[in-house]
Amino acid sequence: MARPVIALLTDFGLQDHYVGALKAVILSIARDATLLDITHDIPPQDIVSGALELEAVVAYLPKGTVVVGVVDPGVGTDRRGIVVQAGTLTFVGPDNGLFALALRRHPAARAVELGASRFALPAVGHTFEGRDRFAPAAAWLATGTDLAELGPPAAGLLDLPIPQPVVSAAAITGEVVRVDRFGNLITNVLRATVPAAWRDCSVDVCGRRVDGVAGTYADAPVGSLCALFGSADRLEIAVTGGSAAGVLGAGRGTPVQVRPVVGA
Amino acid sequence: MARPVIALLTDFGLQDHYVGALKAVILSIARDATLLDITHDIPPQDIVSGALELEAVVAYLPKGTVVVGVVDPGVGTDRRGIVVQAGTLTFVGPDNGLFALALRRHPAARAVELGASRFALPAVGHTFEGRDRFAPAAAWLATGTDLAELGPPAAGLLDLPIPQPVVSAAAITGEVVRVDRFGNLITNVLRATVPAAWRDCSVDVCGRRVDGVAGTYADAPVGSLCALFGSADRLEIAVTGGSAAGVLGAGRGTPVQVRPVVGA
Amino acid sequence: MARPVIALLTDFGLQDHYVGALKAVILSIARDATLLDITHDIPPQDIVSGALELEAVVAYLPKGTVVVGVVDPGVGTDRRGIVVQAGTLTFVGPDNGLFALALRRHPAARAVELGASRFALPAVGHTFEGRDRFAPAAAWLATGTDLAELGPPAAGLLDLPIPQPVVSAAAITGEVVRVDRFGNLITNVLRATVPAAWRDCSVDVCGRRVDGVAGTYADAPVGSLCALFGSADRLEIAVTGGSAAGVLGAGRGTPVQVRPVVGA
Repeated sequence: MARPVIALLTDFGLQDHYVGALKAVILSIARDATLLDITHDIPPQDIVSGALELEAVVAYLPKGTVVVGVVDPGVGTDRRGIVVQAGTLTFVGPDNGLFALALRRHPAARAVELGASRFALPAVGHTFEGRDRFAPAAAWLATGTDLAELGPPAAGLLDLPIPQPVVSAAAITGEVVRVDRFGNLITNVLRATVPAAWRDCSVDVCGRRVDGVAGTYADAPVGSLCALFGSADRLEIAVTGGSAAGVLGAGRGTPVQVRPVVGA
Repeated sequence: MARPVIALLTDFGLQDHYVGALKAVILSIARDATLLDITHDIPPQDIVSGALELEAVVAYLPKGTVVVGVVDPGVGTDRRGIVVQAGTLTFVGPDNGLFALALRRHPAARAVELGASRFALPAVGHTFEGRDRFAPAAAWLATGTDLAELGPPAAGLLDLPIPQPVVSAAAITGEVVRVDRFGNLITNVLRATVPAAWRDCSVDVCGRRVDGVAGTYADAPVGSLCALFGSADRLEIAVTGGSAAGVLGAGRGTPVQVRPVVGA
Repeated sequence: MARPVIALLTDFGLQDHYVGALKAVILSIARDATLLDITHDIPPQDIVSGALELEAVVAYLPKGTVVVGVVDPGVGTDRRGIVVQAGTLTFVGPDNGLFALALRRHPAARAVELGASRFALPAVGHTFEGRDRFAPAAAWLATGTDLAELGPPAAGLLDLPIPQPVVSAAAITGEVVRVDRFGNLITNVLRATVPAAWRDCSVDVCGRRVDGVAGTYADAPVGSLCALFGSADRLEIAVTGGSAAGVLGAGRGTPVQVRPVVGA
C-alpha cells in the first residue's frame, strides 16, 4: 500500500508548538504517513482566507490525501466536527465553511459528524480540538479506518459567505478576496464567470485600467500593472516585478470591474 | 521496524538555510527518518521559551522519538553537549536547561555527555554544532546506536531558572512566561499548583479580574477576558476572539494573581 | 532502493499555498519521496540570496538529492528551465544563475534544457512553472527517470553577477552579501581568498576594527564584535550574543576590508 498523505492547513502559525503537536499526534497513530503542509499562516480565525488557500491547492493533492483543516474560531463550542469524503480526498475539521470552496470543485459524496470518542485522544480538552480530535481522526482514516466508523451521517454542511461578483451584460463587478506574498491581488472573479463571448477584457481597479488579460506576469513591462487568471483560475491583478497591493494601496475588499473590450 | 521520528526545536528561524542543513545531515545518515518540526521560531537564544514549547508538546510525541533541541547561546564554548533518555524519548542538544521542563514530566533514566567524535561530521566547526554534532548524533540514535556509545555518563544536568509562583493560603502569585500567536498569556501557574480545595478561582491581571476558570475560550462572550488551563496544563489568560496580550498590554513577566473564590 | 530526497528552495514564503502545491505535485508522482525544505523565505525574486543559501547547504545534502530551486523573476518568459546533474545531485529550476554558486563547488557534469512536456502537468499555465514544470520534473527524476529524457543538452548556463572582492597584496576589499536571522553579516570573502601567508587578519567594517579571526562567536566577550569564517566558509562579522547588523547599522553592500596583521 502506498504511504498515506495527510495535508495540513491551519491558522496556528509556526512560532508555537501547535503545528508540531498535530504532527506528533498524527505520527503516533499513522507512523508511515507523509505530512504535507499547505500553510499554517492563515490569518488567525480567518475562515475565508483558509477556504481560498485550500481551494487553490486541492486539485493538486495526491490521490487519497486526508486534509486536516483547522481555522476554528468556535473551538470548544457545540459547532460540529466533520469528516467529508469528496472524490478520493477526505477533509477533517470544523463545520464552519472552511472546506466549502474546495467542495464546490470536488462535490462531497459522504459526510459524517465526528463523534466517536474512541478515535480521539484519551484526554480531550476544550481548547485544542485540532490536536485532540481532528488530528487523530485524520490519522485513523489514513490507516484505513472507514469514514462511517467516525460518526453518524451529517447533512447541511455550512456554506461560506464569500462575496460573489455581480454580473451584468456590460460588466462584472467583483472584489479582491486575498493578497498573496508577492502583493498579487486575487479576486472573486473566476475564469468561468467571464462570458466566453468577451474575447478580451479590461479591468478597472483603484482608478487604473488594465487593457487585456495577460498570459503571465512577465508579459507586461517591469513595473506595469497586468491582469491574468492565476493559479486557481481566479482573476488576479499584479505588477510585473513588484507588488500590486503596494502600488495601488489595495487590499481585501477593493472593488474590481471587468468589462469586455469593445471590438474585441 | 517502524520508521524513526526525529523532532526538531530550534531558534534558527526559517529564513536561512540552517534548519535545512540540520535536516540534510540527518537524512544523510538516517534516510528513513520522519522529521517532525516542533518549531524553529523560538526567539534567538531564549532558552526559557524553548523549554516551554518543548514541555507543551512532549507528551504527544510518538514513542521512540529523538528530539534535537538547539537554542544555544553558548555554541562553541565548553558547555557540554548531552544526550538524555527519558522513557522512550531521547533528547540531544546543549546542556543549558533547554530540556529541563520536559524532563520534569519525563524523568531522565540515563544521560551521557556527547563526546565520541566518530558520531559527528568529519569536519566539525565551532559555529554550528547543531549541524556538526547534534544532528548526526540524533540520526545515529535513530538508526539504533545505543546512547552509551555516544559518550560517558553525565550527571548534574543544568536546571532552568524559570520563575516559580509564590503560593500562600490566600493566593498564588505567578507571572506570564510566554505569549502565543493568538495573544494568549501563558503563565507559570500549573494546574497542579492550585490547591484542590479551591473549587473555583479568580484571576487578577493588569488591574482586571476574571471570575472563574473557564473550560474553553469560547465559553466567554466574544471580546471578554477569560482564564483557563491550556493545552500544557498551564493557566492561560485569553480574550475570546481576540488577543489578551493586545487588550491588556501584557507580556512576559506580567504578574498574575490567583485567589480562591469565596464561598465556592 | 533508498527513499529519494527532494530538497526545495524558493522565494514563495509560507503564508500562501504555493509551497504546498509544489509538494502536492511531487508526492502525486513520487509518493515515497522525502521532502527537505531548505528555505522558502528568500526575499521575493532575489536570486543572489537564493544562490548563497543553496551554496551554504549543498555540501550537506544526502547523496542523490534532487534540488528544486525556484526564485524566478522571469517566470513565463522564454528563459530556459534547466536540469543540471553535478556529482550525485540534480538541480531543477530556471536558468538564471540561482544554481551558479552551488555548481562552482560541485561542477556540473551534464545539463539539459527542460523541454519534454510529458514530464510536466497536463495543463501548464504561465504563472506557476514551479508547480507545473519544475516540481513534476524533479519528481520524475526522483523515481528514476534519466536526465536525458527531460530535454536536449543545454550549454552556456547563466552565471551569477555576484560582487567579487578586490584582492591586493595589502588588503582584500569585499562586502556584505547576506544578513542572517541572528544579524550576522556574511561577506563575499571566502576563506580560500585570504592568502595562506596572512597567518592572522584584521577586519574593518563601519569604522570599527576587529583584530584577529575568531574560532567561534562565543570566543569574544558578550556584546563585542568578532570576525570568523562561518558555516559556508565565508567571512562573517558577528556580535557575540547580539546582532552585528543592528549594532553596526550594516546590511547588504556594506564594505569590509581584510588586512594581514603586521608581525603575525
